Amino acid sequence: MPHITLPPEHAGIRSGFAFRPDTAKPMNELVEILLAGPSKLSKGERELIATYVSSRNCTHYCHSIHGMIAAAHLGGNESLVKQVKTDFMQADVSPKLKALLVIAGKVQQDGKLVTGNDVEAARKLGATDLEIHDTVLIAAAFCMYNRYVDGLGTVQPDNEALYRERGREVARKGYVQMSREYLGVAPVQSS
Amino acid sequence: MPHITLPPEHAGIRSGFAFRPDTAKPMNELVEILLAGPSKLSKGERELIATYVSSRNCTHYCHSIHGMIAAAHLGGNESLVKQVKTDFMQADVSPKLKALLVIAGKVQQDGKLVTGNDVEAARKLGATDLEIHDTVLIAAAFCMYNRYVDGLGTVQPDNEALYRERGREVARKGYVQMSREYLGVAPVQSS
Repeated sequence: MPHITLPPEHAGIRSGFAFRPDTAKPMNELVEILLAGPSKLSKGERELIATYVSSRNCTHYCHSIHGMIAAAHLGGNESLVKQVKTDFMQADVSPKLKALLVIAGKVQQDGKLVTGNDVEAARKLGATDLEIHDTVLIAAAFCMYNRYVDGLGTVQPDNEALYRERGREVARKGYVQMSREYLGVAPVQSS
Repeated sequence: MPHITLPPEHAGIRSGFAFRPDTAKPMNELVEILLAGPSKLSKGERELIATYVSSRNCTHYCHSIHGMIAAAHLGGNESLVKQVKTDFMQADVSPKLKALLVIAGKVQQDGKLVTGNDVEAARKLGATDLEIHDTVLIAAAFCMYNRYVDGLGTVQPDNEALYRERGREVARKGYVQMSREYLGVAPVQSS
């Protein structure tokens, strides 16, 4: 049961977002830029970073939904997502992404654990400063989203089919558009 | 030395913000709402929560600057801020704030550690659902800001006078206005 009175029609982070839509707005804008905006890293790769961090934080809602969004971007390859959660070094992802996942895993624990060698290893495999920056920030940001979901005691359904369906929808629509729909916010004209 | 090429004229989180202003924007908007927007918790109290979490994450830049912003809002009482960092249970703050700091400290470790008893204790001392929500989100958000600052290997000056001066300025101007100034972003008209 949630620690505060959250709208019962929503689960996970959506219930926090519905409780306070004004803080939801920048939180959705940040994740939209990081995971769905222009990047040399594919959307699937960025979702895998978010999924891996959420999995290490043991936040069921977040690693389930982002795992399914990642799979949606990766041709439905759910077994690859599971492999990244359990042992990414053996997963069929690029050496560069593995080096970035090492950095993300350290940020998940404590940003001070990232070493010059970790960053150099990623750079040698082709990672740019921007990709390294974004990896650090995706990992840091999911330490926020995960704690928000867990700290409020939100409902985190144990229903793989639900996450699969929603994952596909978020992959198609993006975070900001999706949140406007479930929060019932009218579409805004860009200024 | 930072892990990537950050603008050398900035330290701490400002160097990350200057490296990527488009992710800085929602990050500043979030902290502005949480720490400087309307709330039953005073700005000083909310800055103490941010300072305490940053201190537990051992992120020197963040606990120094937010400690000085807190002090600026608390009539310059830097010794109170130090007491909150080291042992808040003995600090001259309200019982309600102490109960919220217990929750914040748990979220800093892992949101799943927050119990119904922790929340009930805060509620009995007058905390509303919104104050509990905001405490959880402030603590979660600073787990992001702290990891961002540490994970990029940003420069974190060891200069108390610098943090004091900047803390007063941020307390006066707010986060969004301040960031526009140091990022050189033109003021926008509110829509």
